[in-house]
Amino acid sequence: MRGDGRYPLTEADLLSLSIGAALLGTGGGGNPYVGMLRSRELLRKGATVEVLPLDALADDAWVGEVGGIGAPVVGVEKIEQGEECYRALRAVEEVSGVRISALICAEIGGANSMEPVITAAQAGLPVLDGDGMGRAFPEVQMTTFFIYGAKPAPAAIADDKGNTVVFRDVLDMYWLERFARDTAVAMGAGAGLAIAPMRGDFVRRAAIPGTMTQALEIGRTILDARAKRQDVVGRIIAATGATLFFTGKVTDIRRELLGGFARGEAQIAGSGEWHGSEARIAIQNENLVLWVDGRPVIMVPDLIINLDLETGEPITTEVLRYGQRLAVIGLPAHELLKTPEAMAVVGPGAFGYPDLVFSPLAGGRVGNGKDVR
Amino acid sequence: MRGDGRYPLTEADLLSLSIGAALLGTGGGGNPYVGMLRSRELLRKGATVEVLPLDALADDAWVGEVGGIGAPVVGVEKIEQGEECYRALRAVEEVSGVRISALICAEIGGANSMEPVITAAQAGLPVLDGDGMGRAFPEVQMTTFFIYGAKPAPAAIADDKGNTVVFRDVLDMYWLERFARDTAVAMGAGAGLAIAPMRGDFVRRAAIPGTMTQALEIGRTILDARAKRQDVVGRIIAATGATLFFTGKVTDIRRELLGGFARGEAQIAGSGEWHGSEARIAIQNENLVLWVDGRPVIMVPDLIINLDLETGEPITTEVLRYGQRLAVIGLPAHELLKTPEAMAVVGPGAFGYPDLVFSPLAGGRVGNGKDVR
Repeated sequence: MRGDGRYPLTEADLLSLSIGAALLGTGGGGNPYVGMLRSRELLRKGATVEVLPLDALADDAWVGEVGGIGAPVVGVEKIEQGEECYRALRAVEEVSGVRISALICAEIGGANSMEPVITAAQAGLPVLDGDGMGRAFPEVQMTTFFIYGAKPAPAAIADDKGNTVVFRDVLDMYWLERFARDTAVAMGAGAGLAIAPMRGDFVRRAAIPGTMTQALEIGRTILDARAKRQDVVGRIIAATGATLFFTGKVTDIRRELLGGFARGEAQIAGSGEWHGSEARIAIQNENLVLWVDGRPVIMVPDLIINLDLETGEPITTEVLRYGQRLAVIGLPAHELLKTPEAMAVVGPGAFGYPDLVFSPLAGGRVGNGKDVR
Repeated sequence: MRGDGRYPLTEADLLSLSIGAALLGTGGGGNPYVGMLRSRELLRKGATVEVLPLDALADDAWVGEVGGIGAPVVGVEKIEQGEECYRALRAVEEVSGVRISALICAEIGGANSMEPVITAAQAGLPVLDGDGMGRAFPEVQMTTFFIYGAKPAPAAIADDKGNTVVFRDVLDMYWLERFARDTAVAMGAGAGLAIAPMRGDFVRRAAIPGTMTQALEIGRTILDARAKRQDVVGRIIAATGATLFFTGKVTDIRRELLGGFARGEAQIAGSGEWHGSEARIAIQNENLVLWVDGRPVIMVPDLIINLDLETGEPITTEVLRYGQRLAVIGLPAHELLKTPEAMAVVGPGAFGYPDLVFSPLAGGRVGNGKDVR
């Protein structure tokens, strides 16, 4: 990394980024592996992608936010064609009449960590070191961009077959989520979404800074610990400042695909001396709430991360299965997700738990601590 | 009517048009009454709408096709804001960069008979004497325009709240139906759709000619027969050349709302001397197939029309109810709906009856008999 925070993504970085992004996906966000392969192929063919710190953005630069949209359960099996986000981005540029000069992640967690990298390689643009969630969330409006006032239109969605739909006038971010989700499901549950271009000064204030680099570093830590045959879970906790909340074995897992979302619940029986005899995790694509012995101990927007107890591999909700041995760790969400405005959009109430009073975790941090806002 | 086939729609015409359109709706297409009231209000405020015969169209004139989209069962209760089609039309003009000089009905049957009249009054455009169905059909691709090659994009849909979605690149007319239907359902199942502008020479070949005038005349016949206390069903049959297939009483009616469509089946027990003891009608928004004593006697695209036995009122599927006494009449679809290309899109097989071999009705005619194609 150069002193000014800019650096080019290397082939080796892509694997690290994808592993760190899976961890920040908090069980959802889709598997970044296929996107990693696609972006690697683009780099091998000569494309370069530079990571740019948020403070390198000019006030009047236009930033594009792109990401895949659909249901992660479908995403596991669905290999996308690869230009969905790029075509959505071009449609948004055309309709809004502006030229995008940098891209940013909607969500650093899961597959969407790789989408702006792929689009950046295709469009010859830099990608910003930051995102709109600092984790993964299931819905379009759940980004700091929308929470802090990004316009819901014009946005565009494109599929792998050549269809492009433009959301030209949209009342608010909830309507955008509704239209985009339904269109993605109609398209076959795997499509690229580009939202309305945002100005540089807005993105510097509204984005969660440093998350691209943080994902990269988490991935490097995991790979390094594996190579040295160290305790991977321990290294992750040391590197992130996360807290270990529970260890145990999955005894029950229910999942259903409902309106484009994977909803369900996992039960874990405690083993070892860790904090309680039974845990339960509520899921809507991502892990929403962790209860230990009936008491809620971590809840959205804070991060609930399941790691394979032996390998430290982040376990996504779609591969969670009976008998798996897990370490459940918690990481506090970025401060931008804990304001009153944010709580209305990503707090427990927004996920159907109006009775849960958000009690923030301590220890660790998402982002690089630079709150330019 | 002037000698050249042009004429202005009067307030009195609107009621006749709506009644005739309900009959041509073959049980579906939604109730035109609310649209009639809206267009009447526009005329009373000083708007004028001229009906233009197809052969008045210049080759290079651009024609807009607009219509409401949603589920008729919802449509009964939902009063639209009134500018949905107009806003969709303006979005399509803007995206395609052409100026529309005349409007045409997607379907003359049901509520969509009034939509281009309303939009014409709002936009100061004439409305063409013709449509794309000569009846009502449940899906967007089921028009002679799409059957004979109209482009599926750019099309646009608008709701009553201010949302507009543009279908910018669409693979084919089936994808357009899918996107438009899902978006309409997301919008609350009542929205205005405008398809890509069509050239005048194409519309002259592909439209079913004279159906606006025909609906008007059917409506006038019904009103006249009622005023004179004549046998309304008999007058309708005499005026249209339709054939009476069954009279009887509804003994069972099933309806469900499925993916934006009203699907179901009606059973009718024969009364009087008419052709059989039991009839059954399959419904997908419109009446699809009539069986008499187990034998299919009318099937799509031919028109199956239920009339109230006493009043001659066309009965839409959503108000069909136990105990109603009906006359079921049949009218042959226009020739443009009976070619091999058309059969693939609107024949029995396209509606889930691959085993039914289409056997065309004789007697009567939809349209004015001028086949410019």
